[in-house]
Amino acid sequence: MSMSSRSALRPVPAQDDPYASRVLDRPSIVARQDPVVYGHGSAGCPLTPEQVRVYDLRGFLVLPGLFSDAEVARLQEEVAHFRDGRFEVDPQTLVLEPDSRELRSIFRIHAASALFARLLTDARLLSIARWLLGGEVYLHQSRLNYKPGFLGREFFWHSDFETWHMEDGMPRMRALSMSISLTGNTEFNGPLMLVPGSHLRYVTCVGETPAEHYKQSLRRQEYGVPDKDSLATLIEAGGLETSKGPPGTVTLFDCNVMHGSSGNITPFPRVNAFAVYNAVSNRLVAPFGGRPPRPEFIAARKRVAALEPVDPPLA
Amino acid sequence: MSMSSRSALRPVPAQDDPYASRVLDRPSIVARQDPVVYGHGSAGCPLTPEQVRVYDLRGFLVLPGLFSDAEVARLQEEVAHFRDGRFEVDPQTLVLEPDSRELRSIFRIHAASALFARLLTDARLLSIARWLLGGEVYLHQSRLNYKPGFLGREFFWHSDFETWHMEDGMPRMRALSMSISLTGNTEFNGPLMLVPGSHLRYVTCVGETPAEHYKQSLRRQEYGVPDKDSLATLIEAGGLETSKGPPGTVTLFDCNVMHGSSGNITPFPRVNAFAVYNAVSNRLVAPFGGRPPRPEFIAARKRVAALEPVDPPLA
Repeated sequence: MSMSSRSALRPVPAQDDPYASRVLDRPSIVARQDPVVYGHGSAGCPLTPEQVRVYDLRGFLVLPGLFSDAEVARLQEEVAHFRDGRFEVDPQTLVLEPDSRELRSIFRIHAASALFARLLTDARLLSIARWLLGGEVYLHQSRLNYKPGFLGREFFWHSDFETWHMEDGMPRMRALSMSISLTGNTEFNGPLMLVPGSHLRYVTCVGETPAEHYKQSLRRQEYGVPDKDSLATLIEAGGLETSKGPPGTVTLFDCNVMHGSSGNITPFPRVNAFAVYNAVSNRLVAPFGGRPPRPEFIAARKRVAALEPVDPPLA
Repeated sequence: MSMSSRSALRPVPAQDDPYASRVLDRPSIVARQDPVVYGHGSAGCPLTPEQVRVYDLRGFLVLPGLFSDAEVARLQEEVAHFRDGRFEVDPQTLVLEPDSRELRSIFRIHAASALFARLLTDARLLSIARWLLGGEVYLHQSRLNYKPGFLGREFFWHSDFETWHMEDGMPRMRALSMSISLTGNTEFNGPLMLVPGSHLRYVTCVGETPAEHYKQSLRRQEYGVPDKDSLATLIEAGGLETSKGPPGTVTLFDCNVMHGSSGNITPFPRVNAFAVYNAVSNRLVAPFGGRPPRPEFIAARKRVAALEPVDPPLA
């Protein structure tokens, strides 16, 4: 596909897109053009000033004990129901481990489970998302990540935003993820690794996209893979950190922080519910990579209603 | 291959071998029949009583700072020489990562490098090996493990002894490994994970060995893989621990302790020199699995001269 036919599908030409990626044949690191914390100066901040400072500087924050043991127990039951097949789940939202029939991820869990829908609108989460993103938010994506024991596979380093921008058409960096742990995340079972401060820089990736790859939109590891030199630069500058904690720990991380995880050979599955909140003002446009958008269950395009917080407790 | 033709090649019939494995179609966990520490009561122990107690009970011991920074720097130079191709190395002793041309292991490093030969006879290591194993020892195996950055692969759980017994003919549990770290081993770059106390039990593995597998002796992951239930039992009982530390840290572990490691997606390679010391009295016989023995560079059979300790420092 030539550059000109790609550009015809872009909402903005690549040269005017500050976050263009997969265009040049060499990677680069550019500065972030957007705030991290949009709520500075506004009232009702649900975090301490120190927590805001940490999130702003490092791009992530770990909040242990946000959910009670009883709430976690209910969520764990709900996960078991998913695995039992008790829910009617759109089959395309199920992702299995490549080498086995083990469940790896379920997308759009808020559509299948009322309890997860309730969780992801909980005021404890939503008040933080709304304050940090400075306004109304909607669910860009939800999923349950199930890294099974013994054979859970690694996730290589990536910035979510690079993919969301290029493949889904998210215009700016005004989104964040929350991971709610439903099993212990330890140093042993492949916890989330993050690069502090990496959210302030944007690594453009090299495109390797012959025509037939456009059809394989779920084989994501082939696109948006940062190069080793850029990763080494970011990690040398910021170091590495893991998000560990007992069930009920919430990790929030900026849409552009570099993260990944090792595999899991322990018997202990690593189960986390994920919500991606995007500012309503930042809703999706046509993908900046010029391809057709990915399905709605991966990136909400039609359903962008502002979420209303529901007060605790769950259920 | 029928049981009777296998037994014909065994030095002892499987029913008389306390460590028979890959024979039955169901796994089992049996008790260790041998001491862990053979030196109890003998003079000249180079470890503290507490260190001996920990090794005896847990099956491993981490000794930071055993080698000086200057010594580590010399060893790191030597690793660079290996990678530069400066040494004449028997090509069959080089093992590359499956998915790349990256170096994964070099076997028999004491034959290629005088400095590594010197390292592995250093009195700081050898005095410990001789005291714990209760007599003269020789090098059963040496190697450099190079888990490269970004793409280092996992090693699944295993007991070394199971393999050494079945494939190499090591009669009893009277051997130990020492890993000398030449780069930092951190929680991030796939450190050695060990199951405390697992050395006191022996997990027999299920054989999956059609005839042609006998020819593929280096594809080791197909043999001697413990089953998930046994692993869960051991880990539930003993927990998990990682061996972490700066360069120059020595980890000693019993031949039967269950261990493994996750992959390494960080930029930081994890480089360790390994020595396996076996008691001279425990030298190899015909493999208990009935197949021809593996090559000398993996398991010394002819070269079993007792090692003489050399006083520090290195070089």
